[in-house]
Amino acid sequence: MPPLPDSARRAVVLLSGGLDSATTAAIARADGFEVYALSIDYGQRHRFELDSAQRVAQAIGVAEHRIVKIDLGQFGGSALTADIAVPRGRSEGQMSAEIPVTYVPARNTVMLSLALGYAEVLGSTDLFIGVNAVDYSGYPDCRPEFIAAFTRLANLATKAGVEAAAADPSGNLALRVHAPLITMTKAQIIRQGVQLGVDYGLTHTCYAPSETGIACGACDACLLRQKGFEAAGLVDPIPYQQ
Amino acid sequence: MPPLPDSARRAVVLLSGGLDSATTAAIARADGFEVYALSIDYGQRHRFELDSAQRVAQAIGVAEHRIVKIDLGQFGGSALTADIAVPRGRSEGQMSAEIPVTYVPARNTVMLSLALGYAEVLGSTDLFIGVNAVDYSGYPDCRPEFIAAFTRLANLATKAGVEAAAADPSGNLALRVHAPLITMTKAQIIRQGVQLGVDYGLTHTCYAPSETGIACGACDACLLRQKGFEAAGLVDPIPYQQ
Repeated sequence: MPPLPDSARRAVVLLSGGLDSATTAAIARADGFEVYALSIDYGQRHRFELDSAQRVAQAIGVAEHRIVKIDLGQFGGSALTADIAVPRGRSEGQMSAEIPVTYVPARNTVMLSLALGYAEVLGSTDLFIGVNAVDYSGYPDCRPEFIAAFTRLANLATKAGVEAAAADPSGNLALRVHAPLITMTKAQIIRQGVQLGVDYGLTHTCYAPSETGIACGACDACLLRQKGFEAAGLVDPIPYQQ
Repeated sequence: MPPLPDSARRAVVLLSGGLDSATTAAIARADGFEVYALSIDYGQRHRFELDSAQRVAQAIGVAEHRIVKIDLGQFGGSALTADIAVPRGRSEGQMSAEIPVTYVPARNTVMLSLALGYAEVLGSTDLFIGVNAVDYSGYPDCRPEFIAAFTRLANLATKAGVEAAAADPSGNLALRVHAPLITMTKAQIIRQGVQLGVDYGLTHTCYAPSETGIACGACDACLLRQKGFEAAGLVDPIPYQQ
């Protein structure tokens, strides 16, 4: 990507190491923001996502990459942090009919809160999150109304929001939460990322990888990813166990 | 306190070990909730608050006490987590004229988000937080409009909120954020706590204690506490260095 001007504004981008957040980071960078990447280590069962986040951050050319460790796993309640089996080989109908067991309680609320704290310290008013309401509608905290509610909260919760509201009572919000993927299909996300030069070979998607990090090819996340590449007419650069 | 009935509802109570959160926990218990206490170890410069939280939790008789460690200090930006001097001996006018340097970025947003995750796992729909808008008006995230915005967010962010909204579209919110101290003076808080049997000798308030945890008697937090006991006509049971 071309170099940023010295006047570039800072944005905090939540970066998981997955396909969606890598694309989101590339969009923030292409929109002219200096990217401050934030990854949350929320007690995942494997470290491959964070390794991918580091590789993606480096490839995109972020100004800074912070990893905050937080043990949500001690609350239990999710296949991603506790010892519940990850479902395999489900149809899209089965996936979307219910809130997935891979749901982590309040995950996006927690992650955006941390991004907000980081942004406040940086003097940034722009947060980016790669949530998507299309392919994975079972998560309540991936919907546009959730993002709107968090934006409102952020402007009430922070010095920057309070000071901007005092200076301009007409209601222009100082803090913005960007969710550029929210209404895109997986295929559209992948096409956009490829246009921006994202190397999807660096990303990690699988919920149940092998000990060396090879994607299973059967969990909900792998199936959605594979379908996305197929629909985009592109080849997924990562290897699969099956 | 009298024993709870088997049908008692669960509440997640944010417990810092300070005077306000101890009173809040006692109010939740007196309101008939089974208390699940949550303390956040957000990289404080001293551990005395968490030690106090454990003693208070035990004294109140909580069902469970979880401590989640999270390193907000790596973001910098606050005297409570970074290396900025804590102001001493200020008048109330000086304290309330600006947002205090002891402000931790997005702290209440982060803490309520974690409480929300814990509540979701517990099947609880009631969060308690001891924020107060009277004595310490400099914190944006201690105001009633912040609590209202978080309540709205919580109902959009969670399974419980989404399912309740689907079952009852009339707008009754499933998740409630209780902030029982929000309009009380420090003296009112202390009187209420004493009525409920709170042992304030177990609580920790000071921002700059000695190495053995003795309160300094000069930081903003100590001064507000001492003024509160004085106004309540009660003796503060903790020792001070001065």
